[in-house]
Order: sequence, then C-alpha cells, then structure tokens
Amino acid sequence: MIGDSSPLHGLRVLEIGHFVAAPFATRLMADLGADVIKIEPLTGDPVRQWGDQIDGKSLWWSLHGRNKRSVACNLKDPRVRDLILRLVRECDAVVENFRPGQLVKLGLGPDVLRRERPDLIIAHISGYGQTGPYRDRAAFGVIGEAIGGLRHLTDQPPGVSDLPPVRVGVSIGDSLAGLYAAFGLVSALWQRDRSGGDGRPRTIDIALTESVLSLMEGMLPEYGKLGKIRQPTGGGIATAAPTNAYPSADGGFVLIAANSEPLFAKLMHLIGRADLVGVPRFTGNQKRVEHSGELDQLIANWSRQHDRETLIGLLNEADIPSSLVYTAADIAADPQYRDRGMVIDVHDEQFDGSILHPGVVPRCGAEPAAIRWAGPAIGAHTDEVLQGLLAMSGEEISELRVQGAIS
Amino acid sequence: MIGDSSPLHGLRVLEIGHFVAAPFATRLMADLGADVIKIEPLTGDPVRQWGDQIDGKSLWWSLHGRNKRSVACNLKDPRVRDLILRLVRECDAVVENFRPGQLVKLGLGPDVLRRERPDLIIAHISGYGQTGPYRDRAAFGVIGEAIGGLRHLTDQPPGVSDLPPVRVGVSIGDSLAGLYAAFGLVSALWQRDRSGGDGRPRTIDIALTESVLSLMEGMLPEYGKLGKIRQPTGGGIATAAPTNAYPSADGGFVLIAANSEPLFAKLMHLIGRADLVGVPRFTGNQKRVEHSGELDQLIANWSRQHDRETLIGLLNEADIPSSLVYTAADIAADPQYRDRGMVIDVHDEQFDGSILHPGVVPRCGAEPAAIRWAGPAIGAHTDEVLQGLLAMSGEEISELRVQGAIS
Repeated sequence: MIGDSSPLHGLRVLEIGHFVAAPFATRLMADLGADVIKIEPLTGDPVRQWGDQIDGKSLWWSLHGRNKRSVACNLKDPRVRDLILRLVRECDAVVENFRPGQLVKLGLGPDVLRRERPDLIIAHISGYGQTGPYRDRAAFGVIGEAIGGLRHLTDQPPGVSDLPPVRVGVSIGDSLAGLYAAFGLVSALWQRDRSGGDGRPRTIDIALTESVLSLMEGMLPEYGKLGKIRQPTGGGIATAAPTNAYPSADGGFVLIAANSEPLFAKLMHLIGRADLVGVPRFTGNQKRVEHSGELDQLIANWSRQHDRETLIGLLNEADIPSSLVYTAADIAADPQYRDRGMVIDVHDEQFDGSILHPGVVPRCGAEPAAIRWAGPAIGAHTDEVLQGLLAMSGEEISELRVQGAIS
Repeated sequence: MIGDSSPLHGLRVLEIGHFVAAPFATRLMADLGADVIKIEPLTGDPVRQWGDQIDGKSLWWSLHGRNKRSVACNLKDPRVRDLILRLVRECDAVVENFRPGQLVKLGLGPDVLRRERPDLIIAHISGYGQTGPYRDRAAFGVIGEAIGGLRHLTDQPPGVSDLPPVRVGVSIGDSLAGLYAAFGLVSALWQRDRSGGDGRPRTIDIALTESVLSLMEGMLPEYGKLGKIRQPTGGGIATAAPTNAYPSADGGFVLIAANSEPLFAKLMHLIGRADLVGVPRFTGNQKRVEHSGELDQLIANWSRQHDRETLIGLLNEADIPSSLVYTAADIAADPQYRDRGMVIDVHDEQFDGSILHPGVVPRCGAEPAAIRWAGPAIGAHTDEVLQGLLAMSGEEISELRVQGAIS
C-alpha cells in the first residue's frame, strides 16, 4: 500500500524534536503516509551520533529519519521563528519533546502556535509530563523505565544474582512514549476532523514515566489491595505458567510458552509426563504458577536432552508456542519476516545503495507499505519545503542560508 | 476531560479478543472515550485467572477490563453469530486476536462482517501475522519478544552470567501489539471519516513479532552493512554513555543518564573529575561509548560512597537525570504520579470499594481523564447492549440465556 491509500496520507505533522521519543512518534506517522517535516538543528539531531557509523553517517538514522523531510535551521534565530510559525499554518499537528517550557522560551508556545493555526493538535513528550512537582526535572528513557516500574521487574528473582538489573535492550521508554503520542495525536485528529466531530484543537501530554506505568498490568491494583510489591521473576512470568527460557543440550536456550490448559496438556505429553495432566496442583493457571518451580525443573530435564533445533522441531510439531532467542542474524534470515516485507532492502543514497530496514508496522492492506526514502541528510528538504509550502524565492532562501539561519 | 470532550467519544469498537493484546488495544481506546463492547466467553476471558485474586476475582482485571462493556456469549452458537453480525452493524471497528483463520471458521470472516458494515475497519492481532509461512504457528508474547530480537538484548553482556536471559517484566510484546493496533485502527478511521477522506474500509494486520522488531533501533541496518550482531549490554546502553545502574553505599542501585555533552560535564564536576571534560577519549558520544567501561568504573567509585537518597539529592541538584529503581510501593507513594492523576483510586464494586489504578495515558487536556468504571463482571452489560443497541426484548434475551447462548 503506497501513496494515496496509506491511512495517514493527507496529514501534515511538524516535528520539533530530537533524540528518540518525538522522532519515533513521527516515524510511525510517516510510515503510514503522513508528510512529516522535521525541524532539525544545523548540527543535526544528536541521535545521528548514536550507534555505528560509516564515514560519520549513522546507520540507525537511515531508519529513524525515514520518510520524513528535514529542514535544518537555528531555532534561536528570530527569522527562523517566523518561518516555523508560517509552517505551522500548513500543519495539522506538532510533536515536540523539549523540556517543559522550553518552546515557550523560544517564542513557540501553544498560544503562539494556535494564533497561526487555531485547530492545531499538539503533542508534548517529556520525562515527567507538563505539570506537577517534577515537571522541570531532566529525564531520559532509562529514568522513565525505572520510575515506571519496569527496571525493577526486569531482573533475576531476588537473591539469585548480585549484578545490576539489566536495561531492556532498546530505548523502550522513549518508544512507548512515541507510540502513545502517535496514538493520542491521531485520536485527537479523528475527533477534530470527522464529520460530526468537534473541530477542536487538543493538547496531548505524554510522560515517559506514565507511558511505562501504563503497561504494568496488575501491579498497582495488587499493591493497593494486598500490599504486595511485585518482584522480578527472571526468565518466567509472574502470572502464568509454564513459560520460560529452557536450556538446550548445545548450551543455548529455547523459549516455551505452554500457559493454557490445552497447551500444558500437549507439553506434558511431549515430555513424557502425560500422568501430570489433571493432577490438582497443575490444574488451572493459578495452581501452575504456585508450582512453577517444579514444572520448570521437569521441563528443563527434558529440554537438556536435545539441541535447540531439535527442540523447536518437536515443539512446532506439537503446536506449542516456542522459539529460539533470535539475534540480528536470525531475524535477517527469517523467511516469515522476508515474506511479509518486514525485513527489506531500502535504497539509501547516503550509503551508496541499499540498506536493511524493518518494514512498516502495522501492515495496512494486502501488500507491505513501501519505504518512500531513507533517513535524509541534515536539511535535505530545506529548499523544497520553504519553496513548496511557503512559496519563498531562491533568493530569500539563499540569504537566510548565508546568514546561518538555515542550511 | 470526561464524556463528550474525550478524543474517541462517539467511536464504537467491538472486541472479539482474549488474553492481553486485543484487550489492551481496546483498553487504550476505551480510556480515550470509545464505547468498547467486549465479546467474552461464558467462562470469562482467561486473563481473569492471571495474577492475584480476591474471592476468585482478578485484581488485574479491574484495570484490564475498565471502561468496557462485557457481553458474555458462546461464539459457537449460531444464534450468537447472528447477534454478533447485528452488533457489527452498529460498530466502526472490530479488534480480534484469535489464531489466523479462526474467525472465518466461526462464520465471522472479514467478508461476512463487511456485508453488515461495508466500511468496517478490522484489526487482526496474531503472533506472526495473517500471511506467510508461519502464519498458522501458535505464539504468545514471549515468543514475539524473542523473535523480535528483544530477549537476546535484554541480558548481561556475553560471558558475564550463565543465567537464562530475563524476560522484560511485563507482557511487552502483547502491549506493543496492542498499541500498534490502536494506532493503526485510529489512523484508518481518520482516513475513512475525515472530510475529504476516502470512506474506505481497511484491514490492519499486526504481528507480535513485528511490533517488537519495529523498536530495534539500528540493529538491522548495522547488521546489513557491517555484519554486526548486536549484543546485550547489561545495565548500560550500546549506543550512548555514560548511562547505567550504579551501586550505592546502602546496597542498592541508582540510575544515572548523563549521555549528552552538557550532562557529561555536569556529572564529571559532581564526582570531582572536572579534569576529564574535554579529554579526547571522552569527547563526543561515540568516544564515550568506546570507553564506557572506564567511565562506569569512575562513576561507580563515586556512587559507592553515598546512600541512595543522598545520590538522588546530589544528582537532582546538579540537574542530571537520575532515579531510584522504583517498586510498586515507590510508585504508589510518588507525588508526581498523584499530582497528575496517574495513580488513582477507582471505585470498583467487585472489590467492595476503591482500588488503585494507573491513570489514562496519554493525558489529553488540562485535567486527568476519569475512569468511567472498573473491569466489569462477565456479561455485566449483556442486557444493556442487546436491548440498547439491538432493541431486543427482555423475553428474547431471557430465552437465549436459558438456552445457554448468552449470560
């Protein structure tokens, strides 16, 4: 699905963001067809310095910046402020993730923006939110993850290891905030734009901490009613059993999720313990969770007798959810991902040819969405946007460029 | 913000789902004001058996089912199929997470549903997606997390520990799929319903695996260009430094994220190593990542001299992002969450009074959204929905109930 049939074709979003959260929100919208204009500092988004580089160019950026237009400028220049205000008139929404109050200081607060575009939808992303006693505190994703409760739970069970709790392997706090921002923005746009809708502007206020907390399942109700402080459970799940990473004969691990009545029965048959099906202490999820240590031992005694590939073969044959612990290499070679266009080669002129990307999620329609272009160079679309949207002349643009306001 | 001003007020969504992913998608939409009708088996959603219970009632459910209406019925009964079709006429969208093909077997495939409602938006959530060689394989969240690459990266660095890689402490694969489903659905609704939109039905196809893969940052571009298989980095971040969990004098950990030029300088001043600011091997994020081991040692030598609360005080004073590793108790007591209505007491008659919930994310407008009601009992809204939306008589409903088709 490309062009006109993309769900967000016809939507224009201005990103005044940096690092991960706001740019991730706009990547999601750009992937679904929105015209995203990224306001980028003359020195580039700092995330261009993150991860592996080739000739000083970031590989992550090829993905993080894809399908967006980059307009490079100095936000502190008053002429640039004027440009931004003129761009806002042409946009449905703005996404930003500066510290609360920073845009106001730059003369780009909500009131000013809505003078240009009265029905503007604005999404603010920050560590702690736009209000409250901590609103001015600095935060990054890892802080949001810790304060949201995720860091505490992503660990071996208490007493098993002295090592620090691991970080979830990607910027999950920022990504979640970006997802909530995209969802909130489009929801506000639906209400504004639908026939029978209210045509109103809305402000979406996303905190990294709250985006994480929103996913913590029964943790708060259970604490409130029972005083229970949920603890980490290592490779298992606190609320379902059996499900864990089980050792294989060749020194690796295989994930098995047999936490439903029929799956548990299938697994017990497979490991030669059909006698345990229907036994009271293993009947019903609650009972199995209480006895999950014993169950995990039984399953591990079986899994240790086979290598990884054999285990996966046996489990697939029995229709029990299972998998290897995939690495980048496994993902790149996976036939399902390739078949669905979810691992694809994308043209990227900054890297002299093609580069490997994940596809567009969610898939809308029968065909995978095309990637329109890879992450652009800093300011690659400055002229195109200023000429096309603001009808500025080449001369005006050159002057601003010579004076260092744009690039 | 309540009632008419909620962004999704006026939207009606039918959920034919169970466990986590589809019900999480509909919780997000219900929280923003949509009328969500959950089709629930007579025995209840299996997730009602997960986590801690009081008198056989799930505390997680109070949150997972909130703001939705539960209609309990036996999907295999042909009279129920007819009811579902009549309900679909009244709905904008359907969310389901059965195994691919299962709804077709029940006589509720997309073609059948769209005969009733030609512009219906449908979101299918599954382990591997609706197409491709693995589409029929069973999957749960943990499988999606492993195949998406997250499990491999959420671990101590290679060689540090023999323990199995930990699971992210919540159903992150399901939650991500739910978020993508909600975002995709609302995007499709915007395009369908906006003035100038296309009025078309759309199908959103969400795989757990792909929802996770979509967050893996530069992993695929880096593998494709450099053959690099990204490895786990324990408490740190592979792409930014310094940021980690650092030990305190009282035997805990404190998170510090000082991975920008100004933050790095502030931190070096704080730990008494201002001499290291401007040193080439610590200048620029790339260089600091190369030397992150040395940096982490320096910072840990300082952090070990103070207890947790002292560290947080010093770091806040220096305006450096930091936090404790929050537990449920820390979250419940946090003044910022309370101030923003993100930890709130909700009335729940199933638990004789109030129960602790996280608030509605994202926050839309100046006030936190109200929770309209806590997770309902199985079939709590069967009569209300069948009478109100389908204009069925009390007699018709009673007959279906006596015959075991609904409850």
